[in-house]
Amino acid sequence: MELRIHKSTLEEAVSETAAVLGKKSLLPVLNGIKMEVREKELVFVGCDGELMIKKVIPVHKGGFESVETGACVLPADFFQDLVKKMPGPVHMKIVNGRMMMESGGVKTSLSALSTEEYLSIPDVEWDGSISMNSMDLVELVRQTLFAAAKEGSRPVLTGIHLEFSGNQVQAIATDSYRLAFVKKRLNSGTDHSCTVPMKTLRELMKLFKNTKECLKIHITDQLFKVESGELTLISKLLDGAFPNMEALLSKSSKAELVIDKNRLMYSVDRAGLFAKDSGNHQIKLRLTKEKNLNISSFSPQVGMIEENIPLIKASGEGAMDVYVDSVFLLEALRATKGEDIQLFYNGTMSPLILRSRGDDEQVHVISPVRA
Amino acid sequence: MELRIHKSTLEEAVSETAAVLGKKSLLPVLNGIKMEVREKELVFVGCDGELMIKKVIPVHKGGFESVETGACVLPADFFQDLVKKMPGPVHMKIVNGRMMMESGGVKTSLSALSTEEYLSIPDVEWDGSISMNSMDLVELVRQTLFAAAKEGSRPVLTGIHLEFSGNQVQAIATDSYRLAFVKKRLNSGTDHSCTVPMKTLRELMKLFKNTKECLKIHITDQLFKVESGELTLISKLLDGAFPNMEALLSKSSKAELVIDKNRLMYSVDRAGLFAKDSGNHQIKLRLTKEKNLNISSFSPQVGMIEENIPLIKASGEGAMDVYVDSVFLLEALRATKGEDIQLFYNGTMSPLILRSRGDDEQVHVISPVRA
Repeated sequence: MELRIHKSTLEEAVSETAAVLGKKSLLPVLNGIKMEVREKELVFVGCDGELMIKKVIPVHKGGFESVETGACVLPADFFQDLVKKMPGPVHMKIVNGRMMMESGGVKTSLSALSTEEYLSIPDVEWDGSISMNSMDLVELVRQTLFAAAKEGSRPVLTGIHLEFSGNQVQAIATDSYRLAFVKKRLNSGTDHSCTVPMKTLRELMKLFKNTKECLKIHITDQLFKVESGELTLISKLLDGAFPNMEALLSKSSKAELVIDKNRLMYSVDRAGLFAKDSGNHQIKLRLTKEKNLNISSFSPQVGMIEENIPLIKASGEGAMDVYVDSVFLLEALRATKGEDIQLFYNGTMSPLILRSRGDDEQVHVISPVRA
Repeated sequence: MELRIHKSTLEEAVSETAAVLGKKSLLPVLNGIKMEVREKELVFVGCDGELMIKKVIPVHKGGFESVETGACVLPADFFQDLVKKMPGPVHMKIVNGRMMMESGGVKTSLSALSTEEYLSIPDVEWDGSISMNSMDLVELVRQTLFAAAKEGSRPVLTGIHLEFSGNQVQAIATDSYRLAFVKKRLNSGTDHSCTVPMKTLRELMKLFKNTKECLKIHITDQLFKVESGELTLISKLLDGAFPNMEALLSKSSKAELVIDKNRLMYSVDRAGLFAKDSGNHQIKLRLTKEKNLNISSFSPQVGMIEENIPLIKASGEGAMDVYVDSVFLLEALRATKGEDIQLFYNGTMSPLILRSRGDDEQVHVISPVRA
């Protein structure tokens, strides 16, 4: 195995694939990324057994030159740090089971492992694919992932549930105290549903956040695969039935308020300061007689804060008095597009519903906190 | 107590004085900053019993308006966060033992404590003062503080030892494995020596890093005081005799090398990658027959790296073979001014000495590591 490669080409490929590896394992091969020189392409693979990212660079794209084909596994963290600090193009060659690397006057060798024991996720038979814009997929993840459970007794809630049907995809994430729902158009699709783990989605966002590509998505009972030009990501799915939350998204309500989103965000952020001492970040929303939204919080040790926000519109019964978690509300507001927010209220003990005014792509639901 | 104040004036004063307070104390008054409205000035004080920072803003400077004199202690962390999130100028007033604050439509109250139990460092009789440029003081601290002990059995090593004599100040910091020495000119001075704690010096750097002021420095047996126009910092000194390290700074040496500083920094940084697995970050410096400096490191599990750096000058015996801690060497190089480094070598077991070529303001000494 031997090649010459530009520093930037190597640095990008290593950083994209090494990101999969998390905590250090005692087995060296599990801390490595696989690198393979073929005649017409160069392949990098990072895999932790649950998630695999593969990058294939065709030789016609430039940036490297294959001298001799071959494959090996290199320690990801050292390799990544080393490439960053190399002064220029790198000449890499396996000699006596070690990867010799030269760049400028710098000579270095890394222990290289054989690829035999390297983890892999089998590339199974994939049936009909879904076609989706990378910007839409990244946005869909960004608008829902914060609401997924960070941990807990129901592993299926630590991911995003996706439902593809016709030319549309719906995404739902919930930690059972709040819920984020988004739907997007697809370029083309087949009917499928699955729950994708949080880690996979975080890597997806990183890989495609600044791209504008047409992605191919494939889903089987066990696996989720996303392909772009040079990158392939294959992930195991989360087991278990995702709860049916559609009932929570109903539009009927006792009262409906329309509020400037940024104005509300600043207020909730301020009120959250005094709420942080209470375990549930509890702030109070109340509709005043003058049809303002009064936002307040109170910490017995420290103090209180309150302010009135003018409403763009208030309809329905007109009474409202509810305690919510300021962090949940703030995260939902940050994820919501548009300038004006619709807030639907159904009683002190019923969930609050948030929508962007004039847009039914997104819905956020937040359980009230008992005062 | 009542005043009206610009948000930026309040924010700056609170952040400068609240920085003194570290870990949260169980006693609320120890987590507070003191605020005092006088007729002609506004005073903020942060104090943890060891270090006090006081800011005095004269009324003619603008930015606030005194309505009624008075003083109180406010919880530093809440007050600081709250001021940041206020929409504009703030009206502050003590009502029934609470600080009422209004800004735009936002109303808030903070529990205010009486100033009686507030910690203070007595403002003693100060004799003759030293006058020093703030940029010189900040640079002196930056060039030495990294070498002070982070903790350990000898508390006096956790600070910088300052010796003022005539129109010059010398600073030494050492953790007993390496040493940083700097001298600077003073505008005017008196003879004094003292050891100032690390925390005090860190705050000094923060307060004066972007200023160009003439500072007044006063020293007593117990205290160190620095004054600028609006800020006063008073700190307790570290007890104990600082070891005499002057003998280590001698210029005699077996070999002297002159090296491009940046070239050496990049090499040491790279070699340090492989050294991080060993407890002491051990890298090897060796003079080759061709009069290059060979820098290498080796990690049995991972691999090795080596490179040759051309020397600008090599004089003396010409042999050199020494192991050093790459982090110590890198920190010393980063703190050193100028483009070329002089490296003095006295044998495998003797300390390495670093100087900036053509500048005797700075010296760094680093103990070798046993291979």
